[in-house]
Amino acid sequence: MSALANRLKSLPQLAVIKALGKVLTLPRPMVLFGEHAAIRLCDSIADQGFRRVLVISDEVLAGLGTLDPLVAALEARDVVVSLYTGVRPDPTFEVVEDGLAACRRARADALLVIGGGSAIDAGKVIALAASTGKSPQALVGVLKGRQPALPLFVVPSTSGTGSEASVAAVISDSVSHVKSLVVDPALVPLAAALDPLITRGMPASVTAETGIDALTHALEGWMSTFANAQTDGYNRAAVRLILENLETACREPGNLKARDAMALGSHYAGLCLSTTAIGYVHAIAHQLGARYGVPHGRANALVLPHVLAFNKPSCEKRLALLARDIGLAPAGSRDAEAAETLCRRVDTLLANLPLKRSGAQVQRADYDRITEDALTEAHGMYPLPRYMDERDVHRVLDAIRAVA
Amino acid sequence: MSALANRLKSLPQLAVIKALGKVLTLPRPMVLFGEHAAIRLCDSIADQGFRRVLVISDEVLAGLGTLDPLVAALEARDVVVSLYTGVRPDPTFEVVEDGLAACRRARADALLVIGGGSAIDAGKVIALAASTGKSPQALVGVLKGRQPALPLFVVPSTSGTGSEASVAAVISDSVSHVKSLVVDPALVPLAAALDPLITRGMPASVTAETGIDALTHALEGWMSTFANAQTDGYNRAAVRLILENLETACREPGNLKARDAMALGSHYAGLCLSTTAIGYVHAIAHQLGARYGVPHGRANALVLPHVLAFNKPSCEKRLALLARDIGLAPAGSRDAEAAETLCRRVDTLLANLPLKRSGAQVQRADYDRITEDALTEAHGMYPLPRYMDERDVHRVLDAIRAVA
Repeated sequence: MSALANRLKSLPQLAVIKALGKVLTLPRPMVLFGEHAAIRLCDSIADQGFRRVLVISDEVLAGLGTLDPLVAALEARDVVVSLYTGVRPDPTFEVVEDGLAACRRARADALLVIGGGSAIDAGKVIALAASTGKSPQALVGVLKGRQPALPLFVVPSTSGTGSEASVAAVISDSVSHVKSLVVDPALVPLAAALDPLITRGMPASVTAETGIDALTHALEGWMSTFANAQTDGYNRAAVRLILENLETACREPGNLKARDAMALGSHYAGLCLSTTAIGYVHAIAHQLGARYGVPHGRANALVLPHVLAFNKPSCEKRLALLARDIGLAPAGSRDAEAAETLCRRVDTLLANLPLKRSGAQVQRADYDRITEDALTEAHGMYPLPRYMDERDVHRVLDAIRAVA
Repeated sequence: MSALANRLKSLPQLAVIKALGKVLTLPRPMVLFGEHAAIRLCDSIADQGFRRVLVISDEVLAGLGTLDPLVAALEARDVVVSLYTGVRPDPTFEVVEDGLAACRRARADALLVIGGGSAIDAGKVIALAASTGKSPQALVGVLKGRQPALPLFVVPSTSGTGSEASVAAVISDSVSHVKSLVVDPALVPLAAALDPLITRGMPASVTAETGIDALTHALEGWMSTFANAQTDGYNRAAVRLILENLETACREPGNLKARDAMALGSHYAGLCLSTTAIGYVHAIAHQLGARYGVPHGRANALVLPHVLAFNKPSCEKRLALLARDIGLAPAGSRDAEAAETLCRRVDTLLANLPLKRSGAQVQRADYDRITEDALTEAHGMYPLPRYMDERDVHRVLDAIRAVA
């Protein structure tokens, strides 16, 4: 289908989403920020009177001992803690079912997720399934919960997903690898602790990959046709904080100031996700994740420069404005130059990060399915500044494969 | 009118408010918490790209130098700062108009309020009037704004109002002293900094008065018929934090741990205000403020014990549950005893605080007007656990006068 036809087909559905966005004001988590914020969150959980908490995490963090001080802080306040550490990347419905069973066995009155986007997404759906009695599959779609979730608290262990701030969660089918989206304001956690003492445990490669995920949220949000003054403020801040701190956070894992900045940048971008949604970077990256197992942040890094280049003709003014706002381009600069400066800065960042950037695993034989799935995901759901047709996606895939 | 008639008259309107509350999810401010949170908020304002900020405050804080480090932090980030320090307690429409004029002169792209409930309430209405072009008077009522406010950031200088978290603002008529309520989700600030380095400047009497305001929010919220599991969590935490820390905060103004706890308790109670509303303590206290100029927190302190006693027959189970949950009463205690323990603990707290507790200024000749205004305010607006008739209010006023 032509890009114009794709656009025309998408408009009615987008109009409905936009109208809905004007009526629903979105909840936000309370944010505890800075060193020891995670411990303060545990105190707050106890203060609020929760007595049986299920901690949801993964084996890696459990093995590193990251959970121990938080479990100890809860137990010191006489909270009964149970653990479910079975979350794996790209969590499946089985993971959610297992967590839900653990939640029921523990008779938990609150959930505490310590982990990255996968653990947070799993925790969100567990919380909503636990309170509603609905199966995780029955929650797929928009507003299927119809009531508050079990109280959910989160400590992000990465700075990228923004999931601690959004109304959505992604759950995968373990056989087909198809990703299902649960969208419900009830998924927003009650509170999140952004604590650099937690995120400084991240390896450089994970810091880089998740940081690029956050940058992608901010840039796709900035270019979204649903962007408004408030999302612009947050996304502008996010782009600035990430460009100024991601390299440092990778190079100096213990630099708490850089960790703080990345956590805030990621959170700001996450706050906008529910309003501006995302774009083709995510739509294509999701297919690379599902088909070749490319981790989400790295997949975004593969796709980002090429979608930026594709969008530029429609977004030159906006990208130039951003470049000037964050001090990358001088005040009087021409739009074309300022926008190009921003794109080049993103290229330089990607080159400086410890990221595997080869796209050699992408197979030509898969192009048509990847393209169909990416366009199906994007059209009618994402407020895109410029529409692609099949050949445009193929060109992006060619460009990804060309990076050795 | 009899208490039963008052109740029956109120029910239809309350049902509408309750139904609305289920549809509208309420926005929350991002909260930065802990030492230096206010400076971090200034950094965040600059990060988000705001370039012309109007700081709204009062002459007392300006004279104490409280604003200086925050203004310096903004200016260090090349933000142009203007000041409006004309807020007075119980702000009038004139104060709001003056602030609005200052906002327009400054061509401000964001507002930063540093102050107590009066400054925050004024700032909220200034922000909504500035963005909508409507007069402050035209915003009185529910949902009159119809669009986002000018970006609003707040640094509470007291721990009590909870206004940083709520959808409401109270503005007074300078002649009649009638208080008007502006209710709009757009009033919720984008972000709030709860910083003990700011609140430790509070005198003991203000600490006590505002702290009792927060305790009243939490207790009226707990007894509200709109209370739910989430508000119960916050209000339970608030009551515990306030009972355990308010006396210390008054006695040791520099105790940052007590200041942190009070800020969090006040904020938790504030988060529930938009859901559970308030009750007769506020309805009667507002009249003492309007008629005799009693500061809001002190007026709440005058009324609180007597409304607690009035509500107790209808709330015994709930008050007992709270007493047990926060460790005031043993697990197996009888409801009557546990509830009584909580009421006595509130009495002891009031007696231990540096509060002027005399109600001698209340005039018998004013009883009928006070009563009429209080019942008009409460009925149909507040989800009351037990309804008063005129004689019940008179009895509360008698009890207030009896305290020398």
